[in-house]
Amino acid sequence: MDTNVRLSLPAVCVVWQTAMIILFGVFIRYDHESDAHWVEHRKHLNLTDIENDFYFRYPSFQDVHVMIFVGFGFLMTFLKRYSFGGVGFNFLIAAFGIQWALLMQGWFHSLDYTDGKIKIGIENLINADFCVAGCLIAYGALLGKVSPVQLMVLTLFGITLFAVEEFIILSLIHARDAGGSMVIHTFGAYYGLSISWMLYRPNLHQSSRLQGSVYHSDVFAMIGTLFLWMFWPSFNSAICDHGDGQHRAAINTYLCLASTVLTTVAISSLFQKHGKLDMVHIQNSTLAGGVAAGTAAEFMLMPYGCLIVGFCCGVISTLGYIFLTPFMEKRLKIQDTCGIHNLHAMPGVIGGIVGAVTAASASVEVYGHEGLVNTFDFEGKFKDMVPTTQGGHQAAGLCVALCFGIGGGIIVGAILRLPIWGDPADDDCFDDETYWEVPEEEEEGIPTVLQYNNHMRNKDM
Amino acid sequence: MDTNVRLSLPAVCVVWQTAMIILFGVFIRYDHESDAHWVEHRKHLNLTDIENDFYFRYPSFQDVHVMIFVGFGFLMTFLKRYSFGGVGFNFLIAAFGIQWALLMQGWFHSLDYTDGKIKIGIENLINADFCVAGCLIAYGALLGKVSPVQLMVLTLFGITLFAVEEFIILSLIHARDAGGSMVIHTFGAYYGLSISWMLYRPNLHQSSRLQGSVYHSDVFAMIGTLFLWMFWPSFNSAICDHGDGQHRAAINTYLCLASTVLTTVAISSLFQKHGKLDMVHIQNSTLAGGVAAGTAAEFMLMPYGCLIVGFCCGVISTLGYIFLTPFMEKRLKIQDTCGIHNLHAMPGVIGGIVGAVTAASASVEVYGHEGLVNTFDFEGKFKDMVPTTQGGHQAAGLCVALCFGIGGGIIVGAILRLPIWGDPADDDCFDDETYWEVPEEEEEGIPTVLQYNNHMRNKDM
Amino acid sequence: MDTNVRLSLPAVCVVWQTAMIILFGVFIRYDHESDAHWVEHRKHLNLTDIENDFYFRYPSFQDVHVMIFVGFGFLMTFLKRYSFGGVGFNFLIAAFGIQWALLMQGWFHSLDYTDGKIKIGIENLINADFCVAGCLIAYGALLGKVSPVQLMVLTLFGITLFAVEEFIILSLIHARDAGGSMVIHTFGAYYGLSISWMLYRPNLHQSSRLQGSVYHSDVFAMIGTLFLWMFWPSFNSAICDHGDGQHRAAINTYLCLASTVLTTVAISSLFQKHGKLDMVHIQNSTLAGGVAAGTAAEFMLMPYGCLIVGFCCGVISTLGYIFLTPFMEKRLKIQDTCGIHNLHAMPGVIGGIVGAVTAASASVEVYGHEGLVNTFDFEGKFKDMVPTTQGGHQAAGLCVALCFGIGGGIIVGAILRLPIWGDPADDDCFDDETYWEVPEEEEEGIPTVLQYNNHMRNKDM
Repeated sequence: MDTNVRLSLPAVCVVWQTAMIILFGVFIRYDHESDAHWVEHRKHLNLTDIENDFYFRYPSFQDVHVMIFVGFGFLMTFLKRYSFGGVGFNFLIAAFGIQWALLMQGWFHSLDYTDGKIKIGIENLINADFCVAGCLIAYGALLGKVSPVQLMVLTLFGITLFAVEEFIILSLIHARDAGGSMVIHTFGAYYGLSISWMLYRPNLHQSSRLQGSVYHSDVFAMIGTLFLWMFWPSFNSAICDHGDGQHRAAINTYLCLASTVLTTVAISSLFQKHGKLDMVHIQNSTLAGGVAAGTAAEFMLMPYGCLIVGFCCGVISTLGYIFLTPFMEKRLKIQDTCGIHNLHAMPGVIGGIVGAVTAASASVEVYGHEGLVNTFDFEGKFKDMVPTTQGGHQAAGLCVALCFGIGGGIIVGAILRLPIWGDPADDDCFDDETYWEVPEEEEEGIPTVLQYNNHMRNKDM
Repeated sequence: MDTNVRLSLPAVCVVWQTAMIILFGVFIRYDHESDAHWVEHRKHLNLTDIENDFYFRYPSFQDVHVMIFVGFGFLMTFLKRYSFGGVGFNFLIAAFGIQWALLMQGWFHSLDYTDGKIKIGIENLINADFCVAGCLIAYGALLGKVSPVQLMVLTLFGITLFAVEEFIILSLIHARDAGGSMVIHTFGAYYGLSISWMLYRPNLHQSSRLQGSVYHSDVFAMIGTLFLWMFWPSFNSAICDHGDGQHRAAINTYLCLASTVLTTVAISSLFQKHGKLDMVHIQNSTLAGGVAAGTAAEFMLMPYGCLIVGFCCGVISTLGYIFLTPFMEKRLKIQDTCGIHNLHAMPGVIGGIVGAVTAASASVEVYGHEGLVNTFDFEGKFKDMVPTTQGGHQAAGLCVALCFGIGGGIIVGAILRLPIWGDPADDDCFDDETYWEVPEEEEEGIPTVLQYNNHMRNKDM
Repeated sequence: MDTNVRLSLPAVCVVWQTAMIILFGVFIRYDHESDAHWVEHRKHLNLTDIENDFYFRYPSFQDVHVMIFVGFGFLMTFLKRYSFGGVGFNFLIAAFGIQWALLMQGWFHSLDYTDGKIKIGIENLINADFCVAGCLIAYGALLGKVSPVQLMVLTLFGITLFAVEEFIILSLIHARDAGGSMVIHTFGAYYGLSISWMLYRPNLHQSSRLQGSVYHSDVFAMIGTLFLWMFWPSFNSAICDHGDGQHRAAINTYLCLASTVLTTVAISSLFQKHGKLDMVHIQNSTLAGGVAAGTAAEFMLMPYGCLIVGFCCGVISTLGYIFLTPFMEKRLKIQDTCGIHNLHAMPGVIGGIVGAVTAASASVEVYGHEGLVNTFDFEGKFKDMVPTTQGGHQAAGLCVALCFGIGGGIIVGAILRLPIWGDPADDDCFDDETYWEVPEEEEEGIPTVLQYNNHMRNKDM
């Protein structure tokens, strides 16, 4: 196959970036809190500078930003010869995706009908990062098997589908999903798995020599794991209500994740001979609790409830790596490089269910009257809703996320099967040589000699 | 020795995690600021959302969280073949430790006597991270020589001892220790050193081939070093008083650390032949200033005072690596893998002394009357205390930390000597093969060939 | 050449650190917001604790701190055998530089004339980090070719020049430069390039075997790239006005950087045979947008304006790596190891020009009257300034930065040519062996054998 993307990749990047400039010029402006008129607006509302939304959300935003670029990026460096592609293409599609997401989400959520402009502030940046997360999850299933041009197409459609799905779930159905168990993880995972199913490669074993890690690539991947794990409380609390909402979401997620680590270790040890731990599980399944804590993050899930959710997710996710991933590859013809089914799909669905159950059982005793209204946003045209109906709406939201993920993935997968995208041959998968200038390795073990006959391309000259 | 932990490790993880769920169910609830009733509570106290403690402490909390998981974790990746164990077991015991710490510290400090529940908020999460730090320090002395089951036991007892010691020092003795020079570092280091003394291995030289670094493992360790170094101002200021307390602690720590770097470099260069720098010193001794700034972080230590403390710590800590660590191993039979005696024990004691002296010499001229009361918390039953007595109390606190560290370490060390924990043989120390599935290395230097006869286990299938 | 720095390096470190202690003792004290008198001061001004400047700026400060130590440090680990020097010397000179910067900048900006003391708070720490950034940029041009003693000298003079230049540009000329496109990047880059020109090595090709990367060193460098990229919004917003200023600067920088990534990828792919991407471009040129967004970060640059600036910077910077760096080395005798001309110099100048144009075209319609005064600080003796004259002042500021960079670099370069600094021979450049104890590599590919005859120095004993 022809993997030369010398024309297609630059063309896609330049054309799409130009389109972004034009659309931003037509549509996007600063909102009240980031516009230079803030000083007047602030006096009008009798606020102080510290009450600018920036100070409520900027620290969380930066944590989320780290998760998107370092977290997802380094988590995908675990392959022995695809670290450039893992962290580099992650960087590319996230940088494109956040621009397109600002537009797509803006049209649905931040359009000012008085002048037809999208008004953006810090919350829009966080949501754009969230939106991109869905596509990065999908990339996890396809890691090493697609070209950067395919990834750009996947992202363009993924962001579009995400924004529509999110609008339906959050605004029309009025489901709550602070950390995006449904909107981000369930959607993103099934989107990626469906594409992977459409792009099934029966002869992928031809590059199986590269489909594993080396010692140091596993350590690099732990950078991704840990930054995702540590900052997940920020992810789930970033767009929660000011005050107790953000506070509680951070605590809930912190506890969920702690519990997941222990059961991941337990299952990993139990199912390997000699009880040895497997880095794949430690790198991935330890994060499942954060995914599952997403929908209910803001709810009164209670600290022990969080531990229970985390306990179950660690078990299920690790068992998924051991039994389900091989089964899916052999029987369902779904090749899932990073095992996103175990890390995002199953925990995402669990998170949606936990959210529905928790919402349905919410009571005035636990939340207080004002707390209930606040947490579930029983205001405006939803002011007559009660927790039980909210539970039903949550369940409906989960179904929408599943449908959009699977349906969208099949359609986009069909597009990506066209033989024009420069994707690698079966024996060139998981190999950075295909799309990157890779430095030739010096022979290690031989001490560097002064008079060394050098054939290496000097990259800086 | 039998290092198979296939039954013991899963059993310990599952049983202890189940115990946590039960205890959390019985005891742990949200506090005023993270409960859904906050909106009513806030109106009652006439506060705005931004005055929720979450916004004072969350950025510092996340920095501390990074220190615990990435900082300590990657600092321990320096060994050539124990990077998985360094970062992975650090992850495991920290995730367990924070749960147990929330309970232990909660019973002592956050118990609501009206309903017998522990009420947690963001400050409890920070304190749990702090508590775990003590055990991670202890792990540094034992790195590569113990099994994960032993580490879980070490953590269970370590957290328990920590909580009691902390209660005695902070609440009964009324010593101040914002950054934990005494409570965390002195205790944790002597706890680990005593255990290491109890577990002395006369034939450890049998695995000396693995007791060093390779080029890239030293670079990995610098990730840990730098995240610890950069975020130490957050560590020391995280639970200080709102306002000037947090502000001053951050400045003091920043200055202490800057000074330490220069004297570490100076001593490292001076004592190596040809003046070459040693990565062990740069990775560790540069952090000593942060340890020593802990107790007095909140005090009016003055900027030049901070530089002096940092200056001394860099010198002492580096000299410790050069002279004291080999001496301790040969004469005192204390094998200290990471040199925690130089990084935590000595600087911790220095920090305790600096705290006592600074407290004793505090004056109304420097602090102002209200500032003095605020900084030293001369309120309630301690409202008649004066700086000189406070200095004495600080010194008493240091002694308690030492006693708990040494005494606790000897007892726990005795427990860990039982031949049931699956610890490695002398010639298997510092080797990830013992407890981890380690990918076989491809022969580097030989370019990857397409038709490659692959024996590697495919980790994802 | 004699590269033994066993006397000179410790002497410089100890003497200069001692000087810092004395000067700090004489000059530096806490400011109102970090002093224990804050509690009285706060009541006097009727403020709450959350309005302490600490809470406005600390999260940004920590992000900037990460950029300085991990961002710059790891960006310079890309060479196959100079990772220790890249991250380690970066650490050393930054730790010294921030102390000297607190003094130099303090004398110009924070001197309290009532008592002759410099009063420091969180904003001073941020500015000290900024100041150091200039020297670290300069180090990028010299990476691998200078001794640590030379770097200390470069930093001493660099900080001094910076503080004077900054005072002229910001205070005398009254140019605005929130993110330092002119003050930091233009100055720092031309300072480094001029020094590199003065230290031209005609026989540098003798160490060309080391002047490239290996696979994992490129992945390490991506850690630096991503932390710089992610936290650049904090860099450009850290010292902006409270409220909309910080908010807008973060948004502008976020957008600029996103756009840069796409055009960097496009140009990198377009100019390599087979359309393969070059890690050098991805590591560096993707950051150019952040540099260029510096001066105008706080202005109403508009979201589409940011995308345009980012678009251009990605193109220009990547073309610079492909065509300009080899040209400068061959024709202009400027050896620029990291390509700072492409990453900092050109984007810095672009940023200065963008700032001048944006300032000159500012209007009351866009900013509002109060917004205009606020953003451009048209107060005090500058209260009669108008945007068009501000544009001229911005341009004048850019010229001053260029002059200080080039002039200062030539003078300091002349000093650094003295044969007393222990710099490496032409065939020892880019080699950590010169200044570091480097662990001998085990022969990889040969499985670790139990009875292994070990010649390795055991670093911990």
